[in-house]
Amino acid sequence: MTTVPLVSDENASSRVTAVFDDIRQTRKTDFINNFWRALANDEALLENTWADVKKVMGGPGHLDPLTREMIYVAVSVANGCSYCVHSHSAAARAKGMTEEQYGELLSIIGLAAKTNHLVTALQVPVDPVFDAQNTPAD
Amino acid sequence: MTTVPLVSDENASSRVTAVFDDIRQTRKTDFINNFWRALANDEALLENTWADVKKVMGGPGHLDPLTREMIYVAVSVANGCSYCVHSHSAAARAKGMTEEQYGELLSIIGLAAKTNHLVTALQVPVDPVFDAQNTPAD
Amino acid sequence: MTTVPLVSDENASSRVTAVFDDIRQTRKTDFINNFWRALANDEALLENTWADVKKVMGGPGHLDPLTREMIYVAVSVANGCSYCVHSHSAAARAKGMTEEQYGELLSIIGLAAKTNHLVTALQVPVDPVFDAQNTPAD
Amino acid sequence: MTTVPLVSDENASSRVTAVFDDIRQTRKTDFINNFWRALANDEALLENTWADVKKVMGGPGHLDPLTREMIYVAVSVANGCSYCVHSHSAAARAKGMTEEQYGELLSIIGLAAKTNHLVTALQVPVDPVFDAQNTPAD
Amino acid sequence: MTTVPLVSDENASSRVTAVFDDIRQTRKTDFINNFWRALANDEALLENTWADVKKVMGGPGHLDPLTREMIYVAVSVANGCSYCVHSHSAAARAKGMTEEQYGELLSIIGLAAKTNHLVTALQVPVDPVFDAQNTPAD
Amino acid sequence: MTTVPLVSDENASSRVTAVFDDIRQTRKTDFINNFWRALANDEALLENTWADVKKVMGGPGHLDPLTREMIYVAVSVANGCSYCVHSHSAAARAKGMTEEQYGELLSIIGLAAKTNHLVTALQVPVDPVFDAQNTPAD
Repeated sequence: MTTVPLVSDENASSRVTAVFDDIRQTRKTDFINNFWRALANDEALLENTWADVKKVMGGPGHLDPLTREMIYVAVSVANGCSYCVHSHSAAARAKGMTEEQYGELLSIIGLAAKTNHLVTALQVPVDPVFDAQNTPAD
Repeated sequence: MTTVPLVSDENASSRVTAVFDDIRQTRKTDFINNFWRALANDEALLENTWADVKKVMGGPGHLDPLTREMIYVAVSVANGCSYCVHSHSAAARAKGMTEEQYGELLSIIGLAAKTNHLVTALQVPVDPVFDAQNTPAD
Repeated sequence: MTTVPLVSDENASSRVTAVFDDIRQTRKTDFINNFWRALANDEALLENTWADVKKVMGGPGHLDPLTREMIYVAVSVANGCSYCVHSHSAAARAKGMTEEQYGELLSIIGLAAKTNHLVTALQVPVDPVFDAQNTPAD
Repeated sequence: MTTVPLVSDENASSRVTAVFDDIRQTRKTDFINNFWRALANDEALLENTWADVKKVMGGPGHLDPLTREMIYVAVSVANGCSYCVHSHSAAARAKGMTEEQYGELLSIIGLAAKTNHLVTALQVPVDPVFDAQNTPAD
Repeated sequence: MTTVPLVSDENASSRVTAVFDDIRQTRKTDFINNFWRALANDEALLENTWADVKKVMGGPGHLDPLTREMIYVAVSVANGCSYCVHSHSAAARAKGMTEEQYGELLSIIGLAAKTNHLVTALQVPVDPVFDAQNTPAD
Repeated sequence: MTTVPLVSDENASSRVTAVFDDIRQTRKTDFINNFWRALANDEALLENTWADVKKVMGGPGHLDPLTREMIYVAVSVANGCSYCVHSHSAAARAKGMTEEQYGELLSIIGLAAKTNHLVTALQVPVDPVFDAQNTPAD
């Protein structure tokens, strides 16, 4: 149950079709997952979001693709997004995440959640040593 | 301003001192940050939490220490924990995070937050292909 | 699957029936959605919540009904409440929200989520110019 | 730094003064904390919110006042509200919360946060046995 | 739909079986709910989490078992964990929570959520009187 | 206290200066608020985020500028972002939000938070009538 109809290939406008084609080519698969079919109801939002995902998750960079996916999963869990947890856990596995790595990812997420809540409950003041303000910009 | 007094070395019980000593030895520094000084008001919680942090963040494993810290930062941001963001961003830097890597971490967190909210707004149904249920356990 | 049974018209007490009747009359429909049927297990909470919703969302005021619903959707998305996202997106449409307006609502929610997370990650200090404290109360 | 000026006794309208008087009488103290002074910029919201707090937190009921405050603290921590964590932790102490009870409250909050995140990461399906739907309403 | 297969009794390793046995003995029931069957994919995380739950929720202490469960429910609601809300609401009922107590729990959660958001919207500064920093540690 | 140094005009690279100049020209003010000075540590993220904000919040569209800002405030409150609450509440006022409108915005945010939590606590199933799936895409 979505708040919008999912856009099928048949119902796709030419702008939507262009994005779908780029997703297929980039990912080397014919499969378009539901997120893009829902977003496709707003062409500009679809184009903008896919451009971001393509660049941030798939472009050249200093973090490897698997690390990026695990960070994505971590944020999605903390934000309580079921769909995103499913899709990015699957993506992390597709990029080589082992069950051991997944277990460690879960352990870190669980631990961080616990200490996040403890810190908030205790209202711990930030130690001055953590301040980056005095470091010169370069 | 905390909800409990911060426990100084002078006020520390022997159980608290033992944990503080282990933190100092493990981290090779004399510095004990405020989180532990606040937690020290409950000896059992201090011991349990430090044991978790020591093992999950510093023990042997399949994710390198920097990746673990970046995942921790990601969860802490999504949970809105200021102190944790400060302390683990500093820890990530201490473990070698470059400014380029930090910029990419921020980009992923920002993108995930955006798509998390879009997915929740659209109530996108999970694609059956993401189901891990049929995969046999080993 | 709820944590309480949904109260049918047949099982409704007289206090519950009075609220259901007022909902029907106010909304000019015979339909009572599941939220009220679940809340009806606690008569006081049902009465109090309906009184709030009736006044805040439907009473006279300085924001038009559609703007109110879009704000409601925005909060519900950020709080991750699926039911609320569905019911208030439907309500916004019933009050005239166009697909173009809905697309813009989604764009703002997505952008705000992204910058909210970036600000929290960066721990940006509030600019003094944003302080309302010195403005005299009237 | 607030988004509105705090309303002093001198600047209070008669409707605001009436609420401030009731807070003082109910709590048997002359002190009005900043939440009410900020809310006082909107008289109707002040009246409505105080009426709710007075009834839910101080009225007769089946949960004792300390239990109510601890539940309030738990929600406030999970929602990341610093002010609320401070004010309701102080209120819980004023109602008799011991340091041992506070330590247990912290332990439960930390544990729940951890398992909440693990469950969300794993996307665990609800066991049918937890369904209350079939239980008859009374 | 989970991100991992649920571990059945047949597929359980000896370490997993030991935890399942302890859950059954502790809870005096043969039933193992899905959370543990999902967690069982990581033996260390299963052992660690069950040890925490057993001690924090079932061990001796200064809060009665029902109060503990209601606090757990409150955190789980604020964190938006459906499974946890179901399982701990059921656990609270099993430990004697009446419908009247449940109604009050809901009222407190709803009220806290409302004031949490109002405080955050108004950015209310913490009153100095709530500061615990000056209280001597003992 | 930020996790990065704030980039001053003197330390700004030419790419950063170009964005700062566009912000100044677009907003018709010389003032650059701290968010942009913090983001400026990553030129690509600064450019991308400003392009989004400029288009979504200031471009032509079907929602008026004040409505956009109020939706932004609502999301920022629910996400617990202090800085964003301050900056966008100020922006809403600059775009004409009256105190009456602000009071109503607060009332809606508070009410939505309350019902969001009640719905999550009760795990209310979505009414089939809210399903948009069957509506044809156009």
